[in-house]
Amino acid sequence: MDIRTRDVFATMRPDLLRVEERLEKAAQIDFPMVTDLILDLVRAGGKRLRPLILLLAGRAYANDQDNLVTAAAGVELLHTASLVHDDTVDRAGMRRGRPTLNSVLPSGAVILLGDFLFAQSAMLAAATNSPRVVSIFASTLADICDGQLREMFFAHRLDQTRDEYERRIFGKTASLFAGSAEMGAIIGDAPESHVQALRQYGSDVGMAFQIVDDVLDLREGSGQLGKPAGHDLTQGTVTLPTIIYASGLTASSAAWTRLEDVVSGAVGEPAQLRRVVEEIRGSGALDAAMREAEHFAARSKSHIVASPDRETREMLEEIADVVCERSA
Amino acid sequence: MDIRTRDVFATMRPDLLRVEERLEKAAQIDFPMVTDLILDLVRAGGKRLRPLILLLAGRAYANDQDNLVTAAAGVELLHTASLVHDDTVDRAGMRRGRPTLNSVLPSGAVILLGDFLFAQSAMLAAATNSPRVVSIFASTLADICDGQLREMFFAHRLDQTRDEYERRIFGKTASLFAGSAEMGAIIGDAPESHVQALRQYGSDVGMAFQIVDDVLDLREGSGQLGKPAGHDLTQGTVTLPTIIYASGLTASSAAWTRLEDVVSGAVGEPAQLRRVVEEIRGSGALDAAMREAEHFAARSKSHIVASPDRETREMLEEIADVVCERSA
Repeated sequence: MDIRTRDVFATMRPDLLRVEERLEKAAQIDFPMVTDLILDLVRAGGKRLRPLILLLAGRAYANDQDNLVTAAAGVELLHTASLVHDDTVDRAGMRRGRPTLNSVLPSGAVILLGDFLFAQSAMLAAATNSPRVVSIFASTLADICDGQLREMFFAHRLDQTRDEYERRIFGKTASLFAGSAEMGAIIGDAPESHVQALRQYGSDVGMAFQIVDDVLDLREGSGQLGKPAGHDLTQGTVTLPTIIYASGLTASSAAWTRLEDVVSGAVGEPAQLRRVVEEIRGSGALDAAMREAEHFAARSKSHIVASPDRETREMLEEIADVVCERSA
Repeated sequence: MDIRTRDVFATMRPDLLRVEERLEKAAQIDFPMVTDLILDLVRAGGKRLRPLILLLAGRAYANDQDNLVTAAAGVELLHTASLVHDDTVDRAGMRRGRPTLNSVLPSGAVILLGDFLFAQSAMLAAATNSPRVVSIFASTLADICDGQLREMFFAHRLDQTRDEYERRIFGKTASLFAGSAEMGAIIGDAPESHVQALRQYGSDVGMAFQIVDDVLDLREGSGQLGKPAGHDLTQGTVTLPTIIYASGLTASSAAWTRLEDVVSGAVGEPAQLRRVVEEIRGSGALDAAMREAEHFAARSKSHIVASPDRETREMLEEIADVVCERSA
């Protein structure tokens, strides 16, 4: 085919609409007072990158369209469930431009609703009837928990290596991108070497995605999420730009101490936070981190050169570009 | 065989020890500061009734011992994960004779640790390589959430029917007993009619188990759990003995009003609670509820008459008896 696909979202729209349908069906819950809250949350979900990657990973092969749609709905719902718990852990007030569940319901109810969404997502994975898909699904959930626990237990500490950071964001974010691509390839019945290559693709795209997220947090904050710039720092979460910035500082210098005061939570004044954010911005650390994200995005493309369908390959490449072009 | 097994726990001990091993391996977590807490919690788990039922359900057939042990560890870990979240929801201080995780860790960490245990339990289910087992596993988790959400949303209300109560405890408790028996029968490769019969057996045993729990809460409370008698009432949880007691009262009578004050949370004085508990005890409602539990236990036995192995049948019957003979 000679048509260059310039918009993966338009081309994949019919499939994504089927995913949407499955998703809304799975998110139905028998409690009128929360049904709308859950549906709003599911409907407000951004670009559906994870389902998209899953669908595309299976697209070039003798794929099983119905199971691809089912599994795609499963990964999006797993993502949603993990956001629900994550917002409760962080006591976040806004998500996807709306008040979080935990800002309108007792935290106990939110924990159980998150569990309910996990259960529904697991049922979608199970409905593929593929033990291997289910196994990837379960181990991805374990990876996500590992990443989130690492973020919590390593919070408020400046002595973090880039390796620790990468391990953490792999768990928290990239594992589900990797798992989505792997599940799609398996359901599509891709040859084993392609399954592994697509998993690598997903992993690299996911790493790029999270690094960009971390840069955006310092560059502009997010009006939509209701977060000021530097929100991660106030949570004690040390991300790549901060690691890069700190590596250029002399330990115990005034700038180092200011940073450490904010990260450790010892100083909570907005003025101090703003000053540290300005210093990070001025150091060039955001650009350095963006280059890292672009490196992951470029590497992701190298994994898919063997994919048999040119249009699919171009759409996978487009997703890697989209991830780096995001703004908050 | 002519030997009457009088102690299912002794006979099944070698298998249960293998389950224990799998369980401890799955509960390992890469965070030294919480590993011991998780292991303590897993080790302190009572009689292992759910794994036992799963093992026994597969025992009489051409069973697959390794997968039975794996799935048995899976259901126990699912149970543990759900207790972790449940204790967080209830803000419980003690569980299995020890401080709960949420009394020693920030609630965010406990939510994530519960999720981690869910993930590990799902991995055990997936390791059986049986799509049907995984599917039952996932739908059981959905049933548990449904039961817990019902308990929460129906809390503090006296206008509850017995049907609503039964639906709630099926989800909260009996669904996992039912699912355990069903999974065991499937892994053991039992004929389909036996799979269904064993599921019914598990369901009835689970219903008996929860009713006895609810009676014990009013009869004696639980020193081990650190709960005084009538703890459920203080949580606004209306259980079978209370439903039976209330059905004998004239609406708006003084006794009704006292009960409603406690259930609604309007009156939180210990003296009022003690008086209401005494009135429930004096009404014969505890005995009536126990007869209901015994009815479920007796019915559970009727489902297993076709089981091909007499020793296994006797052990399944023994479990039904054990459930009704418990004390707090």
